[in-house]
Amino acid sequence: MTLIYSLKQIKAVLPELDLSKSIEQGFVAYSQGRTVVPPVGELVFESPPGETHIKYGYIKGSAFYVIKVASGFYENPGLGIASNSGLMLIFSTRTGEIEAILLDQGYLTDVRTAIAGQIAARYLAPSSVSKIGVLGTGVQARMQVEYLKPATSCTSICVWGRTRENQEAYRTYMADRGYNVILADTPAMAAEDAQIIITATPSSSSLLHAGDIGPGTHITAMGSDTPAKQELDPVILEKADIVVADSLSQTRERGEISHALKQGLLSPDRIHELGRVIESPDLGRTVETQITIADLTGVAVQDIQIASAVYQAMKKEKS
Amino acid sequence: MTLIYSLKQIKAVLPELDLSKSIEQGFVAYSQGRTVVPPVGELVFESPPGETHIKYGYIKGSAFYVIKVASGFYENPGLGIASNSGLMLIFSTRTGEIEAILLDQGYLTDVRTAIAGQIAARYLAPSSVSKIGVLGTGVQARMQVEYLKPATSCTSICVWGRTRENQEAYRTYMADRGYNVILADTPAMAAEDAQIIITATPSSSSLLHAGDIGPGTHITAMGSDTPAKQELDPVILEKADIVVADSLSQTRERGEISHALKQGLLSPDRIHELGRVIESPDLGRTVETQITIADLTGVAVQDIQIASAVYQAMKKEKS
Repeated sequence: MTLIYSLKQIKAVLPELDLSKSIEQGFVAYSQGRTVVPPVGELVFESPPGETHIKYGYIKGSAFYVIKVASGFYENPGLGIASNSGLMLIFSTRTGEIEAILLDQGYLTDVRTAIAGQIAARYLAPSSVSKIGVLGTGVQARMQVEYLKPATSCTSICVWGRTRENQEAYRTYMADRGYNVILADTPAMAAEDAQIIITATPSSSSLLHAGDIGPGTHITAMGSDTPAKQELDPVILEKADIVVADSLSQTRERGEISHALKQGLLSPDRIHELGRVIESPDLGRTVETQITIADLTGVAVQDIQIASAVYQAMKKEKS
Repeated sequence: MTLIYSLKQIKAVLPELDLSKSIEQGFVAYSQGRTVVPPVGELVFESPPGETHIKYGYIKGSAFYVIKVASGFYENPGLGIASNSGLMLIFSTRTGEIEAILLDQGYLTDVRTAIAGQIAARYLAPSSVSKIGVLGTGVQARMQVEYLKPATSCTSICVWGRTRENQEAYRTYMADRGYNVILADTPAMAAEDAQIIITATPSSSSLLHAGDIGPGTHITAMGSDTPAKQELDPVILEKADIVVADSLSQTRERGEISHALKQGLLSPDRIHELGRVIESPDLGRTVETQITIADLTGVAVQDIQIASAVYQAMKKEKS
C-alpha cells in the first residue's frame, strides 16, 4: 500500500527531526562517492513560462530511493498561488515499489535548501556575527535567515530587494519573528559590515563586487542555480580565502563558481566540496578574518535525506 | 487538491476509452515535433538487481504534463510480487502543480506497450492472418496478442519460451481466453508460416534469422529496449521491405534497428517513424507479400497519452 502524506502531516513531524544532521550525512556520502545521483531531469515551458526539475537517486546501501519533482511557474502569484510546487516519491531499493508520496507542495525543497545554508554557516561563518546582510526578499531570503538560528544568535538584518514594497513586506514578516530589519538602498549597503551575507535573488548579473566584502565575512550564495544566473562578481571568489561548493560537478556548469572558473579567476583545486568540509572542518574557516563563500546549487542528496527522514518518522508514529 | 487513483479505479475506466486513437495521436504529434520529451532518466541497482526509468514530457499546447516512473526488479517473483511496478503523475502545464497520481503499479505501461503493437499491426500486418508466432511467455507475450484483437481475428498461436513450464503456463492462460496455442521447440518453429510474429523476450542474442521469415510476415519486435538486448538477426532488417521505429532517436541507440545500423545492414533513410506511417499509411504495407518490422522501444508520448486519457475520464466521471 502506498502511504500518502499531506503538507500538514509533514509539517507536524518536522520539529522532531534532526534534519541538519541527516543532510550533513548526505553531503558526506555524496562527496565520498557513496551516492547514485544522475543528472537533473528538466522540462521547460514557454506559455506560461515555467520549469520543472526532477532530482533523484539514492545513497548506496539505503532502503529507499527518492524521486523529487519541483516546479517554478513565475506567473502563478497573479493567479493567487505560489510559484513553487512539488512532491517527493519514496521507493524501495529492495523491490523498486513505491512506498510513500510526500505531497509537500515544494516545502521540503525550501527547508532542505535553507538547511544547506545553515550547514555552510556552521563550518564557514565567523564565530561572532553582529549583522546579516540579505539580498532578495523571497522565500529563501526569509528561510535562510530563520534556519541560521542554530549557527548564530544574531537578529540584526540589513536587506536589499528590487522594490521598496518587497523590502517592507520582508521587514514586516521578519519583525514578527523577532528580527530587527534595516532596509538597504543598494546591495553594497546590505553587505557593509555584515559577517554573514546571503544572496537569494534570481539575478543574472553581479550585485556585489570585491570592494563590498570586508575581511571576516561569510557569503552563502544560493540564488544562482543555473548557468545564466549570477549574483557575485567573480573577483570576489578570486579574493576569497575559502570557496566551497555543494557539488563540484554541478558548480562547474552553474552558479557563481562556474563564472569564476570560466574567467580563469579560480583554480579548480581551490574549491572544496561541502561534504569534505563537514568531514574535515579544518578545510573550513580557521581564522576570524578569512573571507569564505559557499556556492549552493541544490543537490539531490538533500532531497533524498529529507524525504527519507520524514518518511521514517511517519512510519514510527504509525507503529 | 491532488487526486489519487488506485489500480482498481483505473482498470474500471479503461474499457470506455479509445486508447488506440489517443496513442496514435501521440505518435503523430511526436513525429511532427509537437512534443517535449527529454531523454529517459535511469537508476540502476545492483543488489538486488533492478532498474528504474523516468519517462516524462508533454504535447505542446496540452493542459497536462506527465512524469512516469517504471521499475523492473527481477528477483521480485521470489518474494511473491511482480517484477514491474510504477506510477504516473499528472501535472498542470498552466501552474506546474500536481493534479493527479495514477497508482497503476505499472499496468498502464503494459497497456500502452501492447497498444503500440496493435497500432503497428494495423498499418503493417497483412490482411489475412492464420497464425501468430510468439517468442516469450511473459506479460507482454500475452498482452501483445490480446491487444491484437482489433487488428486481427486470428486466435491460432505458436509460442516459444525458454522453459516448457513457462510455455505451458502461457498455453493455459491464453486457452482460457479463447486462443489455440501450440508449443514450439525452437524460435524458428514459432515463426514458420506465421503472418504476425511478436518477439517479447529479454534476449541479448538473435533468436530469429533471415531464413526463418517468409514473405508476407509482419514482426513486432518489442523485447529489445536497451543497447544490449537483441532478438532478431540484423540481416532480417536488411531483407525487410519496410522497417518502422516508434522513435528514430531512441532506436539509433537501442533495439533491433541499432544493431542493424551499427553493422551497416540498414540505411537510416529506410526507417520510417511510426507517427509518419499513421499520417501516411502508404508508408506502411501496400503489398500482401512484403516483410515488415516494427521496432518498439517505448516512448514517453505513449505514457503521456494514456495518463491524460485516464485522468480526463476520471474527472468526467466525478463531475
